[in-house]
Amino acid sequence: MNLFYCESLESNTALLNEVESKHCVSVLRKKVNDEINLFDGDGIFAKGTINSIGKKMVQVTIREKTNYEPTSYYLHVAVAPTKNKAKIEWFVEKAVEFGIQEISFFHSKYSERTSLNMDRINKIILTAAKQSKSYYLPKVNAIERYEQVLLRDDLPERKMIATLHPMATSFNPKREDKIICVVGPEGGFKQEEIEFAIKNGFEAVTLGKKRLRTETAALFFTSAYYQIHL
Amino acid sequence: MNLFYCESLESNTALLNEVESKHCVSVLRKKVNDEINLFDGDGIFAKGTINSIGKKMVQVTIREKTNYEPTSYYLHVAVAPTKNKAKIEWFVEKAVEFGIQEISFFHSKYSERTSLNMDRINKIILTAAKQSKSYYLPKVNAIERYEQVLLRDDLPERKMIATLHPMATSFNPKREDKIICVVGPEGGFKQEEIEFAIKNGFEAVTLGKKRLRTETAALFFTSAYYQIHL
Repeated sequence: MNLFYCESLESNTALLNEVESKHCVSVLRKKVNDEINLFDGDGIFAKGTINSIGKKMVQVTIREKTNYEPTSYYLHVAVAPTKNKAKIEWFVEKAVEFGIQEISFFHSKYSERTSLNMDRINKIILTAAKQSKSYYLPKVNAIERYEQVLLRDDLPERKMIATLHPMATSFNPKREDKIICVVGPEGGFKQEEIEFAIKNGFEAVTLGKKRLRTETAALFFTSAYYQIHL
Repeated sequence: MNLFYCESLESNTALLNEVESKHCVSVLRKKVNDEINLFDGDGIFAKGTINSIGKKMVQVTIREKTNYEPTSYYLHVAVAPTKNKAKIEWFVEKAVEFGIQEISFFHSKYSERTSLNMDRINKIILTAAKQSKSYYLPKVNAIERYEQVLLRDDLPERKMIATLHPMATSFNPKREDKIICVVGPEGGFKQEEIEFAIKNGFEAVTLGKKRLRTETAALFFTSAYYQIHL
């Protein structure tokens, strides 16, 4: 059964937005009275029946709702987008599959990329969420300066930055830890940038002696955090 | 400094093969007397000077060799290639970055793909090894039937298969364990296939409640094994 995203599933009638409506009608050829599944990206999953199909808008009568409790799982990855867009998009897709609560993008001194098409990123997130049946969508923040991201006042308590710094320790959070992991650009961080992070309460974390690419390091955190919650 | 692969670095003169020679001369425009780095994929890293450039063949005088000791790290992933070739190629690239000793491919009952271009796979491995400075290249086996892979007599002692089987336990190998992890096709395994694995000494391992794609599950094992060796 196909799964559609709908911003609000509060009432007993749901309206698909333009993109989802087009997908529903033009691609999947759904008709009035067809049954579809919906989710609101915030824990609600619903089953419904299409009751009308208009221009760019599909209306659905909700028959049944399930509320998925949020988990204690909290991972926020802040990453410098790679020069090659496909690599960072690949990370986003995999992060949603594993589960992630928040994704931030930043540019720092040696960044190769200072802008990112957020529409495309959001599309990838939605597709990955549907595919992996993740009923909670991560929060995604548009690209900002490195320092701005690190100084945000809503970051979780355990803050980590991947670095080859000699004082760096292994990544080994506890199951109940809510964490943010920061991964630098392909060109690496400037020494001052690492110091800025440490001064602001970030732990220097090593990813070993291997030269992991930016998107691989970001993926590593996602996979490792997933593992401790298995 | 560019890194080139050379099958044998035993003597003091090394010959690049046709592909590496072309890359060296036509792409990177190296000339006689230029210095280059080499590795043999079996732990030897060397520095040398180009002493002659012929048709499809570059000869290098080795100045200095370093022998990298093999690690106790032993991970073998056997995976059913995905319908979309890019996904399995992406897994191979990331596996080399994290480190892997052997990769096998198989087709089983619900496989979407029964053949694979091994030249392309080997090329991806070489590029990823150079990029991540992995001086050991993994052994790669051409695609075989599922049962053939599971019955091979050179498999390590700890054998695991990813499954949603109710008896499945978490993935939690010890640091010193040499392991093989088997990941099924997008269509999943047939019940008999899981039973065949268990009968042949494989542990059923769960990857949680998330619906991880084939390449993501394979990547998970690689990343998780890397983590326990940090």
